[in-house]
Amino acid sequence: MKHILGVLVENQPGVLAKVAGLFSRRGFNIESLAVGTTEDPTISRMTIVVEGDENVIEQVAKQLNKLIDVIKVADIAEDSVARELALIKVHATPATRNEIIQIVSVFRAQVVDISRDSLIIEITGDQDKINAFVEMLKDFGIKEMVRTGIIAVDRGNRLIKNNNFKEE
Amino acid sequence: MKHILGVLVENQPGVLAKVAGLFSRRGFNIESLAVGTTEDPTISRMTIVVEGDENVIEQVAKQLNKLIDVIKVADIAEDSVARELALIKVHATPATRNEIIQIVSVFRAQVVDISRDSLIIEITGDQDKINAFVEMLKDFGIKEMVRTGIIAVDRGNRLIKNNNFKEE
Repeated sequence: MKHILGVLVENQPGVLAKVAGLFSRRGFNIESLAVGTTEDPTISRMTIVVEGDENVIEQVAKQLNKLIDVIKVADIAEDSVARELALIKVHATPATRNEIIQIVSVFRAQVVDISRDSLIIEITGDQDKINAFVEMLKDFGIKEMVRTGIIAVDRGNRLIKNNNFKEE
Repeated sequence: MKHILGVLVENQPGVLAKVAGLFSRRGFNIESLAVGTTEDPTISRMTIVVEGDENVIEQVAKQLNKLIDVIKVADIAEDSVARELALIKVHATPATRNEIIQIVSVFRAQVVDISRDSLIIEITGDQDKINAFVEMLKDFGIKEMVRTGIIAVDRGNRLIKNNNFKEE
Protein backbone atom coordinates (compact mmCIF):
# COMPACT_ATOMS: atom_id res chain seq x y z
CA MET A 1 0.00 0.00 0.00
CA LYS A 2 1.17 3.51 -0.79
CA HIS A 3 1.81 5.93 2.06
CA ILE A 4 2.54 9.62 1.88
CA LEU A 5 4.98 10.93 4.47
CA GLY A 6 5.35 14.62 5.22
CA VAL A 7 8.75 15.34 6.74
CA LEU A 8 9.79 18.71 8.15
CA VAL A 9 13.57 19.10 8.12
CA GLU A 10 16.15 21.72 8.92
CA ASN A 11 17.28 23.34 5.67
CA GLN A 12 20.90 22.18 6.07
CA PRO A 13 23.27 20.84 3.40
CA GLY A 14 23.38 17.05 3.64
CA VAL A 15 19.89 16.50 5.07
CA LEU A 16 18.58 15.07 1.83
CA ALA A 17 21.56 12.72 1.62
CA LYS A 18 20.85 11.48 5.15
CA VAL A 19 17.17 10.88 4.47
CA ALA A 20 17.81 9.24 1.09
CA GLY A 21 20.59 7.14 2.62
CA LEU A 22 18.25 5.87 5.32
CA PHE A 23 15.70 4.69 2.74
CA SER A 24 18.40 3.16 0.59
CA ARG A 25 20.17 1.24 3.40
CA ARG A 26 16.91 -0.19 4.71
CA GLY A 27 15.73 -1.13 1.23
CA PHE A 28 12.61 1.06 1.43
CA ASN A 29 11.59 2.04 -2.08
CA ILE A 30 10.79 5.71 -2.64
CA GLU A 31 8.19 6.10 -5.37
CA SER A 32 8.37 9.87 -5.50
CA LEU A 33 9.95 12.67 -3.53
CA ALA A 34 9.46 16.40 -3.53
CA VAL A 35 11.41 18.89 -1.45
CA GLY A 36 10.15 22.43 -1.20
CA THR A 37 10.60 25.50 0.91
CA THR A 38 8.23 26.51 3.71
CA GLU A 39 7.30 29.89 5.14
CA ASP A 40 10.37 29.58 7.33
CA PRO A 41 13.54 29.71 5.18
CA THR A 42 15.41 27.56 7.72
CA ILE A 43 12.92 24.69 7.28
CA SER A 44 12.10 22.53 4.25
CA ARG A 45 9.26 20.08 3.85
CA MET A 46 9.72 16.77 2.04
CA THR A 47 6.85 14.74 0.68
CA ILE A 48 7.83 11.10 0.25
CA VAL A 49 5.62 8.44 -1.33
CA VAL A 50 6.66 5.02 -0.15
CA GLU A 51 5.24 1.54 -0.73
CA GLY A 52 4.73 -0.67 2.34
CA ASP A 53 2.37 -1.91 5.06
CA GLU A 54 1.70 -0.19 8.39
CA ASN A 55 4.71 -1.86 10.03
CA VAL A 56 7.13 -0.71 7.39
CA ILE A 57 5.83 2.86 7.52
CA GLU A 58 6.06 2.94 11.30
CA GLN A 59 9.68 1.75 11.08
CA VAL A 60 10.50 4.37 8.47
CA ALA A 61 8.91 7.11 10.58
CA LYS A 62 10.82 6.00 13.70
CA GLN A 63 14.13 5.96 11.85
CA LEU A 64 13.44 9.36 10.32
CA ASN A 65 12.60 10.82 13.72
CA LYS A 66 16.04 9.70 14.95
CA LEU A 67 17.83 11.87 12.39
CA ILE A 68 19.03 15.05 14.02
CA ASP A 69 17.84 17.40 11.27
CA VAL A 70 14.34 15.92 11.13
CA ILE A 71 11.85 18.06 13.00
CA LYS A 72 8.64 16.12 12.49
CA VAL A 73 7.28 13.19 10.52
CA ALA A 74 3.63 12.81 9.58
CA ASP A 75 1.84 9.89 7.95
CA ILE A 76 -0.61 11.79 5.80
CA ALA A 77 -4.02 10.16 5.95
CA GLU A 78 -5.85 8.65 3.01
CA ASP A 79 -8.41 11.38 3.50
CA SER A 80 -6.08 14.06 2.18
CA VAL A 81 -5.79 16.37 -0.78
CA ALA A 82 -2.97 14.97 -2.93
CA ARG A 83 -1.78 16.68 -6.10
CA GLU A 84 1.01 16.42 -8.61
CA LEU A 85 2.16 18.82 -11.32
CA ALA A 86 3.40 17.76 -14.75
CA LEU A 87 4.82 19.67 -17.71
CA ILE A 88 4.47 17.81 -20.99
CA LYS A 89 5.91 18.86 -24.35
CA VAL A 90 3.91 17.16 -27.06
CA HIS A 91 4.44 17.07 -30.81
CA ALA A 92 1.77 19.26 -32.43
CA THR A 93 1.33 20.24 -36.07
CA PRO A 94 -1.28 22.70 -37.37
CA ALA A 95 -3.31 19.58 -38.26
CA THR A 96 -3.27 18.01 -34.77
CA ARG A 97 -3.19 21.15 -32.61
CA ASN A 98 -6.96 21.50 -32.33
CA GLU A 99 -7.47 17.93 -31.25
CA ILE A 100 -4.79 18.28 -28.57
CA ILE A 101 -6.31 21.51 -27.30
CA GLN A 102 -9.68 19.75 -26.97
CA ILE A 103 -8.12 17.05 -24.80
CA VAL A 104 -6.34 19.74 -22.75
CA SER A 105 -9.68 21.43 -22.16
CA VAL A 106 -11.45 18.22 -21.05
CA PHE A 107 -8.71 17.58 -18.48
CA ARG A 108 -8.72 21.24 -17.39
CA ALA A 109 -5.06 21.38 -18.22
CA GLN A 110 -3.43 24.45 -19.74
CA VAL A 111 -1.27 25.19 -22.77
CA VAL A 112 1.64 27.29 -21.48
CA ASP A 113 3.86 27.48 -24.57
CA ILE A 114 3.54 26.95 -28.28
CA SER A 115 6.09 26.52 -31.07
CA ARG A 116 5.80 25.49 -34.72
CA ASP A 117 5.81 21.80 -33.95
CA SER A 118 5.07 21.48 -30.24
CA LEU A 119 2.92 22.53 -27.31
CA ILE A 120 3.94 22.63 -23.66
CA ILE A 121 1.06 21.67 -21.39
CA GLU A 122 0.74 22.13 -17.64
CA ILE A 123 -1.56 19.80 -15.69
CA THR A 124 -2.23 19.27 -11.99
CA GLY A 125 -4.24 16.49 -10.41
CA ASP A 126 -3.92 13.16 -8.69
CA GLN A 127 -1.71 10.53 -10.26
CA ASP A 128 -4.55 8.72 -12.01
CA LYS A 129 -5.69 11.86 -13.77
CA ILE A 130 -2.18 12.71 -14.96
CA ASN A 131 -1.58 9.12 -16.09
CA ALA A 132 -4.83 9.17 -18.09
CA PHE A 133 -3.86 12.49 -19.69
CA VAL A 134 -0.41 11.22 -20.65
CA GLU A 135 -2.02 8.13 -22.15
CA MET A 136 -4.21 10.34 -24.38
CA LEU A 137 -1.23 12.40 -25.55
CA LYS A 138 0.98 9.44 -26.40
CA ASP A 139 -0.56 9.09 -29.86
CA PHE A 140 0.69 12.53 -30.84
CA GLY A 141 4.24 11.92 -29.63
CA ILE A 142 5.52 13.09 -26.26
CA LYS A 143 8.81 14.94 -26.70
CA GLU A 144 9.54 15.57 -23.06
CA MET A 145 7.76 15.11 -19.76
CA VAL A 146 8.60 16.09 -16.20
CA ARG A 147 6.56 15.47 -13.05
CA THR A 148 6.97 16.82 -9.54
CA GLY A 149 5.90 13.78 -7.53
CA ILE A 150 2.93 13.96 -5.16
CA ILE A 151 2.45 16.55 -2.43
CA ALA A 152 -0.42 16.32 0.06
CA VAL A 153 -2.12 17.94 3.04
CA ASP A 154 -4.74 16.49 5.38
CA ARG A 155 -8.28 17.77 5.05
CA GLY A 156 -9.91 19.69 7.90
CA ASN A 157 -8.32 19.82 11.31
CA ARG A 158 -8.10 16.27 12.50
CA LEU A 159 -4.80 15.11 13.92
CA ILE A 160 -4.38 11.59 12.61
CA LYS A 161 -1.39 10.56 14.66
CA ASN A 162 0.58 12.06 17.48
CA ASN A 163 3.46 12.75 15.19
CA ASN A 164 1.36 14.68 12.71
CA PHE A 165 2.65 18.16 12.16
CA LYS A 166 1.37 21.60 11.42
CA GLU A 167 3.63 24.37 10.26
CA GLU A 168 2.07 27.02 12.44
CA MET B 1 22.95 32.26 -9.97
CA LYS B 2 20.27 29.61 -9.92
CA HIS B 3 20.47 26.72 -12.34
CA ILE B 4 17.89 24.07 -13.07
CA LEU B 5 19.27 20.62 -13.81
CA GLY B 6 17.16 17.91 -15.40
CA VAL B 7 18.59 14.47 -14.60
CA LEU B 8 17.32 11.23 -16.13
CA VAL B 9 18.13 8.26 -13.88
CA GLU B 10 17.47 4.54 -13.74
CA ASN B 11 14.60 3.91 -11.34
CA GLN B 12 16.73 1.83 -8.94
CA PRO B 13 16.73 1.86 -5.14
CA GLY B 14 19.65 3.94 -3.91
CA VAL B 15 19.94 6.30 -6.89
CA LEU B 16 18.56 9.23 -4.95
CA ALA B 17 20.99 8.53 -2.11
CA LYS B 18 23.91 8.54 -4.58
CA VAL B 19 22.84 11.81 -6.19
CA ALA B 20 22.10 13.50 -2.86
CA GLY B 21 25.39 12.18 -1.44
CA LEU B 22 27.32 13.69 -4.34
CA PHE B 23 25.82 17.12 -3.72
CA SER B 24 26.37 16.83 0.01
CA ARG B 25 30.03 15.69 -0.16
CA ARG B 26 30.93 18.46 -2.62
CA GLY B 27 29.10 21.08 -0.59
CA PHE B 28 26.73 21.99 -3.44
CA ASN B 29 23.54 23.38 -1.98
CA ILE B 30 20.30 21.98 -3.40
CA GLU B 31 17.56 24.58 -3.26
CA SER B 32 14.80 22.27 -4.36
CA LEU B 33 14.46 18.78 -5.75
CA ALA B 34 11.61 16.93 -7.38
CA VAL B 35 11.67 13.31 -8.49
CA GLY B 36 8.88 12.05 -10.70
CA THR B 37 8.13 9.15 -12.98
CA THR B 38 8.46 9.30 -16.76
CA GLU B 39 6.63 7.47 -19.53
CA ASP B 40 9.11 4.65 -19.03
CA PRO B 41 8.60 3.03 -15.58
CA THR B 42 12.29 2.05 -15.43
CA ILE B 43 13.36 5.70 -15.68
CA SER B 44 12.79 8.66 -13.32
CA ARG B 45 13.50 12.31 -13.93
CA MET B 46 14.90 14.56 -11.23
CA THR B 47 14.70 18.32 -11.35
CA ILE B 48 17.34 19.92 -9.16
CA VAL B 49 17.63 23.65 -8.50
CA VAL B 50 21.16 24.51 -7.46
CA GLU B 51 22.90 27.79 -6.71
CA GLY B 52 26.26 28.41 -8.39
CA ASP B 53 28.19 29.91 -11.30
CA GLU B 54 28.84 28.20 -14.66
CA ASN B 55 31.94 26.43 -13.34
CA VAL B 56 30.15 24.92 -10.39
CA ILE B 57 27.28 23.72 -12.56
CA GLU B 58 29.66 22.18 -15.07
CA GLN B 59 31.41 20.34 -12.23
CA VAL B 60 28.11 19.09 -10.83
CA ALA B 61 27.00 17.90 -14.28
CA LYS B 62 30.31 16.08 -14.86
CA GLN B 63 30.13 14.35 -11.49
CA LEU B 64 26.50 13.36 -12.05
CA ASN B 65 27.35 11.92 -15.46
CA LYS B 66 29.92 9.64 -13.79
CA LEU B 67 27.25 7.96 -11.65
CA ILE B 68 26.32 4.64 -13.16
CA ASP B 69 22.54 5.07 -12.81
CA VAL B 70 22.52 8.53 -14.37
CA ILE B 71 21.43 8.43 -18.00
CA LYS B 72 21.58 12.09 -18.96
CA VAL B 73 22.08 15.50 -17.39
CA ALA B 74 20.72 18.70 -18.88
CA ASP B 75 21.30 22.29 -17.83
CA ILE B 76 17.87 23.71 -18.53
CA ALA B 77 18.14 27.10 -20.19
CA GLU B 78 16.87 30.33 -18.74
CA ASP B 79 14.45 30.42 -21.66
CA SER B 80 12.38 27.59 -20.23
CA VAL B 81 8.94 27.02 -18.80
CA ALA B 82 9.43 26.58 -15.05
CA ARG B 83 6.57 25.81 -12.70
CA GLU B 84 5.98 24.81 -9.11
CA LEU B 85 2.88 23.51 -7.34
CA ALA B 86 1.87 24.46 -3.81
CA LEU B 87 -0.95 23.33 -1.52
CA ILE B 88 -1.74 25.85 1.19
CA LYS B 89 -4.18 25.36 4.06
CA VAL B 90 -5.22 28.77 5.31
CA HIS B 91 -7.33 29.76 8.29
CA ALA B 92 -10.71 30.97 7.00
CA THR B 93 -13.82 31.97 8.91
CA PRO B 94 -17.17 32.88 7.34
CA ALA B 95 -16.04 36.51 7.80
CA THR B 96 -12.74 36.18 5.92
CA ARG B 97 -13.64 33.51 3.35
CA ASN B 98 -14.80 35.94 0.68
CA GLU B 99 -11.69 38.03 0.86
CA ILE B 100 -9.50 34.95 0.54
CA ILE B 101 -11.50 33.69 -2.43
CA GLN B 102 -10.99 37.05 -4.16
CA ILE B 103 -7.23 36.76 -3.74
CA VAL B 104 -7.39 33.16 -5.00
CA SER B 105 -9.21 34.37 -8.09
CA VAL B 106 -6.72 37.16 -8.85
CA PHE B 107 -3.85 34.65 -8.70
CA ARG B 108 -5.82 32.12 -10.77
CA ALA B 109 -5.38 29.66 -7.94
CA GLN B 110 -8.08 27.18 -6.94
CA VAL B 111 -9.88 26.26 -3.72
CA VAL B 112 -9.75 22.46 -3.55
CA ASP B 113 -11.18 21.83 -0.07
CA ILE B 114 -13.20 23.67 2.51
CA SER B 115 -13.88 23.08 6.22
CA ARG B 116 -15.50 25.19 8.94
CA ASP B 117 -12.33 27.09 9.69
CA SER B 118 -10.00 26.49 6.76
CA LEU B 119 -9.57 26.40 2.99
CA ILE B 120 -7.07 24.32 1.04
CA ILE B 121 -5.79 26.17 -2.01
CA GLU B 122 -3.88 24.81 -4.99
CA ILE B 123 -1.64 27.17 -6.96
CA THR B 124 0.87 26.67 -9.78
CA GLY B 125 3.29 29.22 -11.16
CA ASP B 126 6.87 30.35 -11.00
CA GLN B 127 8.44 30.85 -7.60
CA ASP B 128 7.85 34.61 -7.52
CA LYS B 129 4.13 34.19 -8.12
CA ILE B 130 3.78 31.57 -5.39
CA ASN B 131 5.86 33.66 -2.96
CA ALA B 132 3.64 36.68 -3.62
CA PHE B 133 0.52 34.59 -3.07
CA VAL B 134 1.84 33.16 0.21
CA GLU B 135 2.68 36.69 1.33
CA MET B 136 -0.95 37.75 0.75
CA LEU B 137 -2.31 34.78 2.72
CA LYS B 138 -0.04 35.25 5.73
CA ASP B 139 -2.38 37.79 7.30
CA PHE B 140 -5.14 35.17 7.56
CA GLY B 141 -2.92 32.55 9.15
CA ILE B 142 -1.30 29.74 7.18
CA LYS B 143 -1.96 26.43 8.91
CA GLU B 144 0.06 24.23 6.60
CA MET B 145 1.95 24.62 3.35
CA VAL B 146 3.69 22.18 1.05
CA ARG B 147 5.52 22.93 -2.22
CA THR B 148 6.84 20.59 -4.89
CA GLY B 149 9.97 22.48 -5.89
CA ILE B 150 10.47 23.67 -9.46
CA ILE B 151 10.16 21.53 -12.58
CA ALA B 152 11.06 22.88 -16.02
CA VAL B 153 11.25 22.11 -19.73
CA ASP B 154 12.99 24.03 -22.49
CA ARG B 155 10.83 25.97 -24.90
CA GLY B 156 10.78 25.04 -28.57
CA ASN B 157 13.27 22.59 -30.00
CA ARG B 158 16.67 24.11 -29.43
CA LEU B 159 19.36 21.91 -27.97
CA ILE B 160 21.18 24.14 -25.52
CA LYS B 161 24.11 21.91 -24.79
CA ASN B 162 25.38 18.60 -26.04
CA ASN B 163 24.31 16.92 -22.90
CA ASN B 164 20.74 18.18 -23.12
CA PHE B 165 18.23 15.40 -23.19
CA LYS B 166 14.92 14.56 -24.71
CA GLU B 167 12.85 11.68 -23.47
CA GLU B 168 11.82 10.52 -26.93
